[in-house]
This record gives sequence, C-alpha cells and structure tokens, in this order.
Amino acid sequence: MIHSLSLSDVLAEHARSRPQVTAVVDGEVRLTYPELDARVSRLADALATAGVAPGERVLWLGQNSHAVLELLLACSRLGAIFCPANWRQSADELRFVVEDLAPRVVVREPSDATAALTADTTLWVEAGEGYERLVASGSPGDFPPAADTEPVLALYTAAFDGRPNAALLSSAALLAHSVSLLVVRQMEPGFTFLNNGPLFHVGTMMFCLATLQIGGTNVFTPAFDAEEVCRLIDAERVTQAFLFGPMIDAVTKANTGGKYDLSSLRFVSHSAEWDAMITVDDSPWCRSKMGGYGQTEVGGMLTFLGLAPGAAGFAGRPSPLAQVRILAPDGSEVPAGEVGEICARGKTLFSGYFARPDLNAVKSAYGWHHTGDLGRREPDGTITFIGPRLRMIKSGAENVYPAEVERALKAHPAVADAAVIGIPDATWHQAVKAVVALKEGVEATADDLIDHVKNALASYKKPREVAFVDVIPKRGFTPDYDALDAAHGGGNYPGT
Amino acid sequence: MIHSLSLSDVLAEHARSRPQVTAVVDGEVRLTYPELDARVSRLADALATAGVAPGERVLWLGQNSHAVLELLLACSRLGAIFCPANWRQSADELRFVVEDLAPRVVVREPSDATAALTADTTLWVEAGEGYERLVASGSPGDFPPAADTEPVLALYTAAFDGRPNAALLSSAALLAHSVSLLVVRQMEPGFTFLNNGPLFHVGTMMFCLATLQIGGTNVFTPAFDAEEVCRLIDAERVTQAFLFGPMIDAVTKANTGGKYDLSSLRFVSHSAEWDAMITVDDSPWCRSKMGGYGQTEVGGMLTFLGLAPGAAGFAGRPSPLAQVRILAPDGSEVPAGEVGEICARGKTLFSGYFARPDLNAVKSAYGWHHTGDLGRREPDGTITFIGPRLRMIKSGAENVYPAEVERALKAHPAVADAAVIGIPDATWHQAVKAVVALKEGVEATADDLIDHVKNALASYKKPREVAFVDVIPKRGFTPDYDALDAAHGGGNYPGT
Repeated sequence: MIHSLSLSDVLAEHARSRPQVTAVVDGEVRLTYPELDARVSRLADALATAGVAPGERVLWLGQNSHAVLELLLACSRLGAIFCPANWRQSADELRFVVEDLAPRVVVREPSDATAALTADTTLWVEAGEGYERLVASGSPGDFPPAADTEPVLALYTAAFDGRPNAALLSSAALLAHSVSLLVVRQMEPGFTFLNNGPLFHVGTMMFCLATLQIGGTNVFTPAFDAEEVCRLIDAERVTQAFLFGPMIDAVTKANTGGKYDLSSLRFVSHSAEWDAMITVDDSPWCRSKMGGYGQTEVGGMLTFLGLAPGAAGFAGRPSPLAQVRILAPDGSEVPAGEVGEICARGKTLFSGYFARPDLNAVKSAYGWHHTGDLGRREPDGTITFIGPRLRMIKSGAENVYPAEVERALKAHPAVADAAVIGIPDATWHQAVKAVVALKEGVEATADDLIDHVKNALASYKKPREVAFVDVIPKRGFTPDYDALDAAHGGGNYPGT
Repeated sequence: MIHSLSLSDVLAEHARSRPQVTAVVDGEVRLTYPELDARVSRLADALATAGVAPGERVLWLGQNSHAVLELLLACSRLGAIFCPANWRQSADELRFVVEDLAPRVVVREPSDATAALTADTTLWVEAGEGYERLVASGSPGDFPPAADTEPVLALYTAAFDGRPNAALLSSAALLAHSVSLLVVRQMEPGFTFLNNGPLFHVGTMMFCLATLQIGGTNVFTPAFDAEEVCRLIDAERVTQAFLFGPMIDAVTKANTGGKYDLSSLRFVSHSAEWDAMITVDDSPWCRSKMGGYGQTEVGGMLTFLGLAPGAAGFAGRPSPLAQVRILAPDGSEVPAGEVGEICARGKTLFSGYFARPDLNAVKSAYGWHHTGDLGRREPDGTITFIGPRLRMIKSGAENVYPAEVERALKAHPAVADAAVIGIPDATWHQAVKAVVALKEGVEATADDLIDHVKNALASYKKPREVAFVDVIPKRGFTPDYDALDAAHGGGNYPGT
C-alpha cells in the first residue's frame, strides 16, 4: 500500500498540492484540480452504482473530451478498466469491441454505428448531457485505494489476425511511462498540452497523462482542426500539441500573417516559417525530432533517440525504466549487429491483452515481452528498428526477415515500394523473391536491385528474382503477404 | 518478472546500450559499462561463494570508492543487501553496526576502529588489494534476476533512541527516486557526477544512482578536498558535484586565478566569483537552489521546490512519484494551514528498517509512512517543513509542537537559538516554556518574545515563561529536551 501510486492517487495529491491550477480546459469547461478531483469521485460513485466493480470495463465511443480523462481517473479510483475506442470504426468493428470487452457502462456520441449497438448488461449513456447527468447522480466519497499494478486502461491495437486486441496498462506502467516522458521532454509544472490527436491512440494519451503527472493543464479539442489549434494555442498558452509533418504544415498555413500568437508552443523545428512562429525547444525529445521506437504494449515509447545523441541506430536507446534485448526465436540473445526480435522488460510494460491468455503466453515467452518487431544493436549500442517480424524466410540454414530486405530495397533511389516473399527452392528450401514498384519515370533492372541489396546486406539475403508491379497490395500499413504469395509463387515458409 | 527492473538490470542494459561510455572513474581506474558489468558479475559470484545468499548483508567501512557502487550492484545481482557505513564512527558505534546487521562479508579500510572488529561468521576483506583479489576470485556468469521490490541498500539513519536504524531501500524505490531527480535536475546522457560527499549518506548516493540510471559517468574521490575537486572537474568535465555553502566557497578559493577550467560544471548560482567560473544551470533543481524536503526513508527527496515556482512553502511540492499527507496523530488529515506530521506514500519509499518490526509498525501506521517531521500545507498547496516532531505539548485541548514555536522564536532578530518545552500546569495540564539564547550584544525581554510569538502563531502556542541561557544543549542537530526538561522544570507530556 505504501509503495502504490495510482492515477487516482496522483489526482488526489494534485487536488491538495495545486488547488489553484487549471487541470482541464474543454470548450466552456474549466476545472481546477480540486474540481476535477470532486467530479471524478462523483463519477466513480455513479459508475459503482451502475455495477462497475473492480476489473469491470467502461467504454468510451466518441471524440476527444475531458470526459475521457475523467472516466479514466474514475476507473482508477474504482480499480476498474477504461477503454477509449475509435468511434469511427464500422458497425461490425464496433460490435466486435462491445462483445469482446463486455463493458458494464458505455458512453457514446450519437452516430449511425454507435446507435446500432446494444447489450443487455450494459448501461448506455449519451456523451454530453447524459454524461453530465451521470456525474451529477454520484455522491462524493472515499474509496479504498486500488493497487497500482491492476490494469486501468485498455487500448485496442495489434490486429495480428485481422481483429484487434485490447492492450491492458496498469497505473504503475502508465506513470512509469509518463515520468520517462517528463525526463526526455523535460516537462515542468505549467506544461499545457493540447489533446488534438485521438485519445484512443497511445501517442496522444501518453502526453495527456504526463501532463497530468507534472500537474499541468490538459486542453481538449474534439479532433484536429488547424485554425482551432491555432486559436487554442494562443488562448491557453499551450506548450505542446499532438502535431507532426502535414499537421504542422496545415497549422503554419492557417496562421499565415501571424493572426495567432503561437510563441508559447515549445516544439520541434520544422520549417523556417514554423520556427519563426513558435519557440523551438531544445529538450532531448524535440532536439531529436521526437524519434524512437514504441508501441501501445510498452506504454508508448520503448526507446528514445533523445537519449542517444549522435546514435547510429535511429531508434536510440531504451527508456530509463526499461530493458531491451534482441532475441532469436529460441529466446537466446543475438549478437550486436544481427537482426532479431525487439524484446523488453521494465516498469512501463503492459499487463497483456484483455481475455487473450494464449496470445499473452506467446508474447511473454522466456520472460520477455516480444514486440513482434525486428531490430538490431548497432556498434554504439543503439537500436535500429527494422520492421514488423510477420514472417521469416528460411534459405538454407539462414533466416531472412522480409522487413530487412525491404528496407534495403527501399533505400534504392528508383524504388517506390517493395515487398519480399519466399518461394520454394529445391536446393535451399526457399529463395528470396522481391516484388518491387518503381518510381514513375525512373528505371532499374532486376540485376541493379539485386546488386544493391548485395552491397547492403549479407549475400544470402539478396533476392534471386525480382517481379515488377505498379502497386504493392497492403493490409493496413504492411504488405499483404498472402496476396503476394498467391500472385508471385510464394510458399514453403518454416513452420507451415 | 516482465515488470521488474533492478539496479543490476540497469547495468546489464547499459553494458549493451553504452558499450563505449565510461561508467566509473576512480584514480587510475577507468571502466566502461561492459567492463563494470563484467566486474560486478565476478564480484557477485565471489560474494555468493562467501555465503552471500539473497537477503544477506554486505558491509563497506571506508571512504568513497568505485568499490561502493560495484558492491551495491553485485548485491543487486544476488538479491542481497549492501550497506555502506560511516567508517569514522567510534569503535563502539562500529561494533553496534556489525552486531545489528550481521553481515556475511565486510570490506574495510584499515583503521584502529575497523581493525578491532571481529565476527565469526563474517568474511573480512581489506579494501584495495584484498578487494581486488575478491573480484578476481569470481567467475563471470548468469544470475537469475532478483525482484526489484526486495531491499538492496541499507543506510543507517534515524537514531530515535540514541542508536541508528538501517533504512532498507529496494531497487524499485531507488530507481523511482533516481528518475525523479532526472526530471527535476533535467539530467541527460553524458552527465558526469563527482562523488565527493560521503556515499553512506543518501544525498551523495542519490546522485550517484541517478547518474547510473541515465548512463552517465560516476567519478569517485575519497573525500572532499577543494583542490582535488577542482582538478577532477577540469580533467573529467564534471557536470555536477556534491557541493553546498562552505564547500562552494572553498572550491572558489582553491581556484582563485582560474587555474582549473570549471566551466563543465552546471550548478547553482552562489557568488559572482563562483558564477563566473562555472555554468549556472537553469534546471528546476538548480533554479530553486536545490530546495525541498527529504530523508533517507523516502529515498532522498520527498518534495522539490523546483516543482513549485513561486511557492509559499519552502519545501515545494511532492515528487511526481509520491503522495504527501499532513496527518494528525489519529491518522486523520489536518486541514491546510494547520501543522501535522508529514506522511508519505509512493514509489520511492523505503521498505522499513532492518530488523525493527515494532518501529516499522509505528512508522507505517494507517498505511502512511510517518516521517517524524512536522509540516503544513500552505494556501497554494505547497508544503512547509516545520521541524522534527520529537514531542508534543498538550495545553488544554490543544496540541503544541515545540518545533513550530521554536521556528517562530528564531525569526525574532534578537534570538540566536531557542528550544521549547512543556511544564506542568494545574489548569491546562501543560504550559509552554521557551528557553532562549540571545545574540551577543542584542537585548530582548520575555514579554518581547512572547508578543512576537503571539503575532506569528495562534495565541495558545505562545510561551507563558521564558528562560534565558547562553547555549541550548543539543543532541546531534536537535535540542536535548531531556536536559532542558531537567534544568527548566519540564514534564506532564501526553502519553507519559
């Protein structure tokens, strides 16, 4: 008990330590930490009345709102699990989530898809007024502290087999991750974060929680709108928002002429115009252009480029609260310079997927979380992320990971996209075959590309054959290997 | 297992992530992280051979040395407990420590006092060559990871009853505290800490461990020597050393004429001369002149002034990984503005004192660690440290804490020192009596001082009587209340 610190505990401390600090801004809503604490207690009481016992789930289907943070904190106060899910999914996908998670309470914004959802044992609450009535129905009171090692947040991710899995994160993991962001981003009291990215994604949620931990201010806006982002940065003196590449360009464009004062934003250098509008920040996080390697299952970021100035590996070095090993399929550590699966241990790690005991056993083999991604230690000890593991080609005694060969192919100036498959080979069991889409108006022969890979990687990894196509078929962000195998003669994979 | 991160794990990660980084400098000794990792494995094996099983103790009696860090890390690798103790204690005090801790191995520097120590079941090793032979006798090998919640460091402190108690700190607590220092001091890779304060004190140890956690360089020197500190800062490009007040003046004096280049030191502003020699750092830690409240039992710092810019309370706000409550003796929370005991929960807290079950029960009453110190929440939520609790005076229904009244008395311009006792009172059970030493050549009457306290505190806290003395008798840093009671008629304390 003395060593436990839950999200609810952090809020209870802030209510005492920061009575005058604004915790939350959302449209007309402005809450100090004591006000947020009181609402969260009322909400927790109302949820408990609705049957949300420890371990039960509460689901949010809607845009960004301060209600997301309140529901998370109320679930922490109860020892329950909160899941903010993507409400723009298809009706079929939403039905899957509701059936999978079996939530006791669902708070939803109205849409055709969310309106179609039903479940007998669930209390359905409309976001907005319905939610406010729920909060008002609760009584403030004391709750026995819940252990910080119990899951409190569920985020759907990792659709290995076409359906997503809910990664469970405990308060201990979320706060360990938050404090690693405090270190790398050098966040200080007064930090104001604009939640303009989706809160069902760990990328936004992790900064929302770090801002909570340091006692800063979370500003919520339903979704990204460049003009509204400018207005809120100016009005709330925002320190950081969830912005990258094209979003930064859109914000820069929306502020042409300097209509809004964006100087409070301490962020990454991007363009001369952008840099002149904001304050370019020199924390390790911003200096390294927010680089690193992460996934929901490690709480967000596992490695940070900001902890590895001048690194050879563009994923940088592990968080101060995590360990990384590059492991072979048999659980042994592969030597530096060789490719294996990125595996992890540490304070920020998730507690497995909700209701997936078999998958959890596989993912935690040999006492290490297996990320499903391939990586390599460079000579300076830093880590390079190669790509998703997905499948392995066996050529003679050698393992060939498609992602590694694809990376090498894509580094060729003529290649727009590439995928690598294994084709049956009488002598070597399998041979490497590349499927390549060239850039428009640029030429390259199969031999050019084979030579290019041979120069970049060990010779046994080079393709024996190259097929040229207009477009590589995809499943989400990764090549559709089943379609590629069918179209280009793939087969004989190890384990099949 | 997947969520555990011990000091030994941090070292094992650095050996992979930072193969070229210097971990340790100590005289002629320079070790990279892989070299340190290999020595720690050998040492752990040698200690295991000497009977150091999980939970057994290893004692260091000597000056600062890289051996202190190696022994701590080797004990972490074994699940054992390491204690660096003050070797300059009297023979009687050292005997008490050896009897209390019953260490399996003692590494000692030669002195009359340490040479007199004996114990049958203990392996006695001489620091220096004897220690090197011990390391060389071990074989490098794998050790099953020890849980990070087990105690790994014991530091003697808290001599409540005249004899000290060994506060036990787990890897989890030490690393949580370290990461809070990384946040407030904004430490980055490349940080180089000069261990010139005693490593048996948490103030030096906490920066040694934070430097380890961020993968920086720890430089060891046997003890504080101003000229040697200058030389090492220059030679090793030291970022921070264990320096305050008079030590900073001594270093400034030793570097008169700018013999050494101290510009790598990023530290607290102190004097015009000092500021010109170093780089004044603007991290929250240095900006706030390293203020806060701490004790060994919370891992070092519990609150930081750097987390409370413009704070009313000079102890600032809690660490991002801890909670603080100001509690009454019955375990209830006292309202803001009132004095109570500073109590804490969180990731940085100790695991109790070694072999003190009764004391541990008292210190963790109501599920909160009781620091033994008095504090108050100010209107802005920040915390003021009042002074050690020690004893309480009961006047009518009111609790009067001597430390609070003493603080008020010492704020009077004529008062050099003050102590407050309770004297028997027929009506009110006890009355407050002040014992005061005035500054030389300054006058003040009893009425002056009583009026002064009445203006500063609630009237029932003002002294009824004032006795003037030349010097307040002390026991360590605090007034010797037994002597004061005997000399000035104290008695009738509640609970006696």
